[in-house]
Amino acid sequence: MEKVRVIEIKESIFADNDREADRIRGELKQEKTYLLNLMSSPGAGKTTTLLRTIEALKDELRIGVMEADIDSSVDAEKIATTGVKSIQLHTGGMCHLDAGMTEQGLREIGTDDLDLVVLENVGNLVCPAEFDTGAVKNAMILSVPEGHDKPLKYPLIFTVCDALIINKIDVLPYFDFDMDKVVEYAHMRNPKLQIFPVSAKTGEGMEAWTAWLREQVRGWNDM
Amino acid sequence: MEKVRVIEIKESIFADNDREADRIRGELKQEKTYLLNLMSSPGAGKTTTLLRTIEALKDELRIGVMEADIDSSVDAEKIATTGVKSIQLHTGGMCHLDAGMTEQGLREIGTDDLDLVVLENVGNLVCPAEFDTGAVKNAMILSVPEGHDKPLKYPLIFTVCDALIINKIDVLPYFDFDMDKVVEYAHMRNPKLQIFPVSAKTGEGMEAWTAWLREQVRGWNDM
Repeated sequence: MEKVRVIEIKESIFADNDREADRIRGELKQEKTYLLNLMSSPGAGKTTTLLRTIEALKDELRIGVMEADIDSSVDAEKIATTGVKSIQLHTGGMCHLDAGMTEQGLREIGTDDLDLVVLENVGNLVCPAEFDTGAVKNAMILSVPEGHDKPLKYPLIFTVCDALIINKIDVLPYFDFDMDKVVEYAHMRNPKLQIFPVSAKTGEGMEAWTAWLREQVRGWNDM
Repeated sequence: MEKVRVIEIKESIFADNDREADRIRGELKQEKTYLLNLMSSPGAGKTTTLLRTIEALKDELRIGVMEADIDSSVDAEKIATTGVKSIQLHTGGMCHLDAGMTEQGLREIGTDDLDLVVLENVGNLVCPAEFDTGAVKNAMILSVPEGHDKPLKYPLIFTVCDALIINKIDVLPYFDFDMDKVVEYAHMRNPKLQIFPVSAKTGEGMEAWTAWLREQVRGWNDM
């Protein structure tokens, strides 16, 4: 297996995170690189969803992945098997990434030859939502076993995201998960939220999600 | 349904959280009240596990529950239906509780007439693990759909907990979850960790967990 490069990122020194995030977005626009910030709870299926997404788009787009984790490199090793450029960011215990930390990752991965960079944020529904990373768009994954009440309990992340992937629909028969209710609650928080029910395991529903992402990247990069 | 009392807790002013936590534990010891800090990811089943635990122990122990959430009172409303004393703590966006915040809750719920208080912490595997709340013991729930690799990715919480409940074992057939591996990884982090595989939904395995908790409370309270 390809050896994964691990970067120990430092807490950001910037007082004004939003301004730094805007500057990063400006640079990404110039370089024609689309940065997606992908958030979720631990175990919602970020890495599996990403593997499927890479499989669907890697022939058309040059993709890079930055895996952020408190510790361990298990996810980056899985991503590396797809052949796309990937690095592991260790946050040193930090529960989120801000713009400065994201920029350290972008410098290490090198965005010149990439159309799409996905930042797989730390598994957490609270803290990552509070910081603009400089990403063009935010997406989150909620998995069926977590329950349909999550937009009521973790409002901010549903508000700041542009896309909501509802993963693990293959196990819907085994859980008391109400798809209509989760859509209603999520749209209460954010009426513009694009919602994609998928099973990253079986591939069901992935086409609508990857079509949305493809269109996003092409629009941003003038492709 | 009983109206739930909601407390807006403020960020703590104490510089030395560990000292405050020790002071709270000392007071709880004197009052013969056992405080359990229960942590997990969002959707791992804290509330359902708690409902089963209350059902098993409420005839022998006087129980109180403090539900901590960013927002919403859906969990406290469910707990209130059991008839035990319960309050809802709103953290105002904060991702964890520290000792000072926990103490605000303890004052509101009133511990004089309680043998066991359970603090249901904010759903998050990162931040709550960093703060001693003053609890006698820490327990966490990991649910089967989250995957068996979590002790590798979120090491601290497995280190600071005394008990690990592995919930949703009723759906084991539908997930690639290796029970031997999770036990091995969890014990790597913390060899003394007590592990209880359960299904809070069906009740399977709950007896071992409630027996452990009963013994804990009786020991602390000299009952």
